Amino acid sequence: MNTHYDIAIIGTGPAGLSAAINAKVRNKKFILFGNDHLSMKLEKAHQINNYLGFPGITGQQMQTLFQEHLKEMEIEITEKKVTNIYHMGDYFSILANNEIFESKTIILATGVQVGKRFEGEDTFLGRGVSYCATCDGNFYRGKVVTVIAYDKKEEEEANFLADIANKVYYIPMYREEVEVDKKIEVIRDRPVEIIGVQQVTKLIMQNRELDTDGIFILRDTISPSTLLPGLETNENHVKVDRLMQTSLPGCFAAGDIVGKPYQYIKAAGEGNIAALSAASYVDAKAKA
Amino acid sequence: MNTHYDIAIIGTGPAGLSAAINAKVRNKKFILFGNDHLSMKLEKAHQINNYLGFPGITGQQMQTLFQEHLKEMEIEITEKKVTNIYHMGDYFSILANNEIFESKTIILATGVQVGKRFEGEDTFLGRGVSYCATCDGNFYRGKVVTVIAYDKKEEEEANFLADIANKVYYIPMYREEVEVDKKIEVIRDRPVEIIGVQQVTKLIMQNRELDTDGIFILRDTISPSTLLPGLETNENHVKVDRLMQTSLPGCFAAGDIVGKPYQYIKAAGEGNIAALSAASYVDAKAKA
Repeated sequence: MNTHYDIAIIGTGPAGLSAAINAKVRNKKFILFGNDHLSMKLEKAHQINNYLGFPGITGQQMQTLFQEHLKEMEIEITEKKVTNIYHMGDYFSILANNEIFESKTIILATGVQVGKRFEGEDTFLGRGVSYCATCDGNFYRGKVVTVIAYDKKEEEEANFLADIANKVYYIPMYREEVEVDKKIEVIRDRPVEIIGVQQVTKLIMQNRELDTDGIFILRDTISPSTLLPGLETNENHVKVDRLMQTSLPGCFAAGDIVGKPYQYIKAAGEGNIAALSAASYVDAKAKA
Repeated sequence: MNTHYDIAIIGTGPAGLSAAINAKVRNKKFILFGNDHLSMKLEKAHQINNYLGFPGITGQQMQTLFQEHLKEMEIEITEKKVTNIYHMGDYFSILANNEIFESKTIILATGVQVGKRFEGEDTFLGRGVSYCATCDGNFYRGKVVTVIAYDKKEEEEANFLADIANKVYYIPMYREEVEVDKKIEVIRDRPVEIIGVQQVTKLIMQNRELDTDGIFILRDTISPSTLLPGLETNENHVKVDRLMQTSLPGCFAAGDIVGKPYQYIKAAGEGNIAALSAASYVDAKAKA
């Protein structure tokens, strides 16, 4: 069992980062899950005009400024993918790369899911459908797996699976050139439906079908209700009040995940509120 | 009658500025009321650590960056003091330095009022009590007026009054040295109550009383319910929903005025939301 944190922040977009610097200012024991590149969406942004203080900045410049802010405040990013969070009453249990972390509060800042879920995706989640190659890859030794990848960075995950599985199909949902291990079969097609009986057996695409034992769907974001069952949502957004409190006590959310407008400064502002709310929650519990 | 704006933004703290740059991005016809120094509170901030992107910045550095952002986007500040806003049904009528402006929507970003209202202040507002020397000074030609000033910048207002009134008392509510016209009598005391019959006659202070015809109370901020009658408030904060909509259609609010935490990035995030909400409101009305 791992260390008990005051605040666990999931996501390294502007909302998560803003939450982290405020958790640091409030001197809380916190962990920040995400990746060192911060946010794909940010990295790819051409020009941002409406983040007050930075006129006409590019996404990459902003990324650098944010990284410097973290460095200055000695905040580290835990590069693990959170796939599940369980509400344990008094605290939360977080599954990240098959490791368990515990925290008194959670701040969800994972952004909004791009693209709809596939037909059959929910039905077979945990029964052949997985969101994390590192976590579940080993269940597919000698088997056939299919990777549906929304970002070029997932090619690494596919290569990892190629060393374990007997056969890997790779379906890129992005436009860049694909550079993966030669053993991997790259297919440019549009997934439509996942079918199976007890377990996944097939992926139906627009132009062909694949027999497969497992399907890894690698999006930047996992839908909130999948991530943390029991959370109240509203058209794919997490419901929060003005203090960024969700329907679960101790669970806060900020940024695109809570709704439009999808804007950096709005996300950063909400991250600030969420962290201060989480810190107050922790303080109140300590006094009780 | 003055030009009809889409959006009138009241206040040049981070919430108002963020609203302005977003109104500009959305190509709306807007006016930004405030002052070129932006915000006293910001100017005086020693160090700000939790505005994502600017680690360990001083208030003055941030002020400069914000001013550069406005310049870059060719946004001008109208240096007039808004003392009253009237809801005219389809639009709002704004009184600023006795000039009338009209706007389809309003964004209140005036911050939170420092200090309590004085006993009798509400009773005699408009009957001897005023919040704006430039606006109401001329009513006191040859009379006795008292200025209660919360910031050194108000010394200029007192000097202006000294040219009109027969006698000016000046009560500084700040610690800095007072530098005003020699005709003005400076009194260091604590105001307690305003009394009068039809009109103001006296200001009671802790240690002495003043016979006075008018009292100018110059705070950075006017309480929201005084500024815009009919607005729903909640313990001195304006009630808003997650889209920063107040209880009056077309009136939005952002920043400290809507509640804690009183933080720059939170205010800037809310200003972003308020401006986009106001822009949508204007667009929807245009289509209707």
